[in-house]
Amino acid sequence: MQYHLNGFRPGDPNQADAVAQNDTDIADVLIIGCGPAGLTLAAQLAQFSDIKTVIVDRKTGPLIMGQADGIACRSMEMFEAFGFAHKVALEAYWVNEVAFWTPEPTGQGLHRADRIQDVEDDLSEMPHTILSQARVHDFFLDHMRQAPTRLEPRYGLDLVSLDRPDDPELPLTARFCQTDEPHLSETIQARYVVGCDGARSQVRKSLSLTLKGDSARQLWGVMDVLAVTDFPDIRLKCAIQSADQGSLLIIPREGGYLTRMYIELGALGETERAADRAVTSHMLIARAQAILAPFDLKVAEVAWWSAYEIGQRVCDTFDDVPLIKHDTQTPRVFIAGDACHTHSPKAGQGMNVSMADTFNLGWKLAAVLRGQSAPTLLNTYSQERRAKAKELIDFDRDMARLFSARPKTDHDQFQTYFKKHGRYTAGVETRYDPSVLTGSSQHQALAQGLKIGMRFHSASVIRMADAKPMQLGHVLKADGRWRLIAFAPAQDFGVEHGTMFDLCTAITDIVARYTPTGSDIDSVIDTRAVFQMSHRKMDIGQLHPLLRPQKGQHGLVDYEKVFCADISEKVDIFDLRGIDRINGALLIVRPDQFVAHVLPLTDFASLSSFFEGVLLPRVSCR
Amino acid sequence: MQYHLNGFRPGDPNQADAVAQNDTDIADVLIIGCGPAGLTLAAQLAQFSDIKTVIVDRKTGPLIMGQADGIACRSMEMFEAFGFAHKVALEAYWVNEVAFWTPEPTGQGLHRADRIQDVEDDLSEMPHTILSQARVHDFFLDHMRQAPTRLEPRYGLDLVSLDRPDDPELPLTARFCQTDEPHLSETIQARYVVGCDGARSQVRKSLSLTLKGDSARQLWGVMDVLAVTDFPDIRLKCAIQSADQGSLLIIPREGGYLTRMYIELGALGETERAADRAVTSHMLIARAQAILAPFDLKVAEVAWWSAYEIGQRVCDTFDDVPLIKHDTQTPRVFIAGDACHTHSPKAGQGMNVSMADTFNLGWKLAAVLRGQSAPTLLNTYSQERRAKAKELIDFDRDMARLFSARPKTDHDQFQTYFKKHGRYTAGVETRYDPSVLTGSSQHQALAQGLKIGMRFHSASVIRMADAKPMQLGHVLKADGRWRLIAFAPAQDFGVEHGTMFDLCTAITDIVARYTPTGSDIDSVIDTRAVFQMSHRKMDIGQLHPLLRPQKGQHGLVDYEKVFCADISEKVDIFDLRGIDRINGALLIVRPDQFVAHVLPLTDFASLSSFFEGVLLPRVSCR
Repeated sequence: MQYHLNGFRPGDPNQADAVAQNDTDIADVLIIGCGPAGLTLAAQLAQFSDIKTVIVDRKTGPLIMGQADGIACRSMEMFEAFGFAHKVALEAYWVNEVAFWTPEPTGQGLHRADRIQDVEDDLSEMPHTILSQARVHDFFLDHMRQAPTRLEPRYGLDLVSLDRPDDPELPLTARFCQTDEPHLSETIQARYVVGCDGARSQVRKSLSLTLKGDSARQLWGVMDVLAVTDFPDIRLKCAIQSADQGSLLIIPREGGYLTRMYIELGALGETERAADRAVTSHMLIARAQAILAPFDLKVAEVAWWSAYEIGQRVCDTFDDVPLIKHDTQTPRVFIAGDACHTHSPKAGQGMNVSMADTFNLGWKLAAVLRGQSAPTLLNTYSQERRAKAKELIDFDRDMARLFSARPKTDHDQFQTYFKKHGRYTAGVETRYDPSVLTGSSQHQALAQGLKIGMRFHSASVIRMADAKPMQLGHVLKADGRWRLIAFAPAQDFGVEHGTMFDLCTAITDIVARYTPTGSDIDSVIDTRAVFQMSHRKMDIGQLHPLLRPQKGQHGLVDYEKVFCADISEKVDIFDLRGIDRINGALLIVRPDQFVAHVLPLTDFASLSSFFEGVLLPRVSCR
Repeated sequence: MQYHLNGFRPGDPNQADAVAQNDTDIADVLIIGCGPAGLTLAAQLAQFSDIKTVIVDRKTGPLIMGQADGIACRSMEMFEAFGFAHKVALEAYWVNEVAFWTPEPTGQGLHRADRIQDVEDDLSEMPHTILSQARVHDFFLDHMRQAPTRLEPRYGLDLVSLDRPDDPELPLTARFCQTDEPHLSETIQARYVVGCDGARSQVRKSLSLTLKGDSARQLWGVMDVLAVTDFPDIRLKCAIQSADQGSLLIIPREGGYLTRMYIELGALGETERAADRAVTSHMLIARAQAILAPFDLKVAEVAWWSAYEIGQRVCDTFDDVPLIKHDTQTPRVFIAGDACHTHSPKAGQGMNVSMADTFNLGWKLAAVLRGQSAPTLLNTYSQERRAKAKELIDFDRDMARLFSARPKTDHDQFQTYFKKHGRYTAGVETRYDPSVLTGSSQHQALAQGLKIGMRFHSASVIRMADAKPMQLGHVLKADGRWRLIAFAPAQDFGVEHGTMFDLCTAITDIVARYTPTGSDIDSVIDTRAVFQMSHRKMDIGQLHPLLRPQKGQHGLVDYEKVFCADISEKVDIFDLRGIDRINGALLIVRPDQFVAHVLPLTDFASLSSFFEGVLLPRVSCR
């Protein structure tokens, strides 16, 4: 954490100085819905005091009981960017291993067929965790409250209509009634509206979009219980397939005592709906007991339960621009999360993908509203996220079918599939297609393990100035900044006339084009460097000024730009991420932590032209 | 973290359920002073809803600007027991290395003579950190607020007198005046009073005790600055000895920009006091510039500064029992922290030793007040802590002399001393002498690296039930419980008829003597086991019920009692801590994390007699 830049200030450094905002009737962004998608977006936008954000929810207060609970490694990485991953890690259950139980070969009872590591080594520096969605909401709400804008949701507003005037200069108008007193209405005008209002999204309906897809017609129950059992793996994630009583998925929960169970309830008839079965918690318990037999299961308390059918559906587009006009028109209304894609909870992807949607959208909205990028940037949201939702739904369909399949035929197939797709469920397989934001793979060989279009994969380094061992990825905060990470060639100490020094000179020129006068040199594009030798061999006084920039009202030196490989480790970051030790590599990293490009350290022209494609010169800043 | 034991409860699990306390006029414990010593004690006692604690301070509100800042590894371990080490680690500066600068051999300017690791490998799982004392206070205050008693300090009460009636059945009476309105007075009665009221302690004076010792007559200045410099090691802890301008100690501070400087200002005359020199911040800056020359130092802002003389002084005793009566009388008034020992800030020990004082006292007061132990336990506080304070003062005197010594003669000596005493300054060298609380070293060989009388030295293990990699020491929470940690012999899987199983049967008998009827079996003595084989080879169903106890109103199983060596590591906990792999070892760990005894797994008699010496049978519980 960096603080005290503009003078010593006592108190909690997590609490940003409040900044008064312009008093305007028209919001920059109106977010409908305080679920994971809405809160991720609000937490991102709350950092910018020059953006007026309003977030509303039809519920009359924050979520108390969560439905979703699985937090993928990738989401933990994103929480780190928001500064609260450590809080989740402390409270959550950690999914370390998965056990697979199948019928005994005799047909009587169950046996543990396999037990595997849940997250493969070095897939992420973060664990796969389980924590109530309500707590995740709490952390986002805390983050918003501590941001310069002190953003708080407005609860109890139910969207009635959303008007979109044809003239793009005119604001959008959202009409609400009060949830508690439906005869009372209210109107909010905004430049952009984002519907994070769930599977029955009013915003989606206002765009005349529909969720398309099929249902596997499988009914499942889910319950959170405090139970006493002699089943030995009750504190492990378990996939249990009984001989003839169906399947059960056990997800241990936070706190050491709570358990979530997903229970197969059989196929639904052609016209049957989940509600028709009149499922009760007693039915769920009885079925769980039957599946787990001969192990004993006594449920002391059911904290929450539900029944649902599996369905995989997705919208054709995630914004208000018809597909055929995507080249000529920029969007003003977006949908995210369950509003534009639904799937089963089996793969534990719902909350994670919803948050990833708006983590993709947030920085883009901020860049356009702050005059850093042209509005066409906003077209990339639906392009990028719709393609990923489609992939998820295909994956989820396979996964759901396997979970519901009979054990005798599909046991091996299930396990093979489960292992193979560990990376997918960890959320780290997302790879955006080439676009203005995602460069060509021409120079990918310079950094084999840092794939263009995929999230920056962290590894440990030593911070030069204070010798602190840390994760390089943890400098990628959710602050809307682009980042350049220059990995130095061997024997380059960053001194004058060397490759790194010359690169820094070139970057300084490029950065100056986009950085508002009077702002710190790293306020739009933040440059970091990683050297190959021991930090003890470096001389900070010889480095380019870009790597020891003077910032803030006092011109204090920022000493946190330069890192070195951790030579005390057998394999360092250059080994782990396949970085060319002879030539080094330059990474362009998006504000949402995705690798936009890999370039040679000397290819100033490509670097320059990349930013010409995504950023506006500073004269346009508002 | 374990929660939801007595039913699912939404919300922040750090917030304990509030428990209404008996409305009584007489406090159990009155703590005078809200510094590190007072707050550590209050945070400990706040956990017990059957103890009424009152904490007051003469200041009218919480500390805003801290003086102390160094947090030793040992204090971080203690913070972990209170659940906030991760918050400190996140905000703080980490002391990773120390640089030593001395005059160039030519006599002109300075050069880096050496650069060493600050904390040796595996000295502690915690880093050595630097953070404002005010933030440490904040974390303790948060902890108190979240405890069952919702304890809050009362500010603005200045102690005037403390009456101790001869009859030990009568309460102590403390009279205060209000700091803001001195004509208004107030009286608080209490069974025990703890003076954590600093170097000018009123409580100490009421006991007619004095700080004894000498002063090195060296004047030092200290300042926290935001500065711009070309001195390359400004973000490292540095000891700088100039040729003829004196010495400077640089301590980088949290947030990346702030720096603390300790500056030598020369010897004081025989009758001279620090105040006589009329030190100003400008004088400190000028001297720092002279010492650092030819490096440049521009100070943009002085956040805080002070001047002080070094002195090492200690009280003869830390309670109200005259030395000659220590065998027959039990104490009711205690002093802790600066109230009973003062030293220079060079070794960074002030805040740390003060917190260690009351971490020693807190569980003892709780045990006596809750009827678990006889009042004679309280005599061990002064015995144990006074001996350690004396050691600290001897150490500090040597350290201060070396810091003030001329470089030409003592450079090598200084560095040698500095390295050698890294363990001491990390706070992990404290070793209590044999007593009722600290067993003989007869069986020390069974666990060579877990020294009797020293703090439990953590190492990583795998939690059996959920395969979580974690630090074993992190189960030692500040909850007033004794702990037994049984390290299993090789090939012992914990099954019936084995050494571990039989031990658990014996422990169950012993534990039953001290555990109140209706309380969980681990509520007074908490037993944990560590096995040598992979957690995947264990069968939880075969373990003794003590290692999978049923607890709370639902009889839910606690799955967090059993651990296994991390066989994926080259050296596991048995190697690291020198535990006898053939015979195993049984550790008795005090509620303040100190190892009380090491015994053979089969020595039930010694185990039984140890607890007879420190605990009262349950019939005595109030």
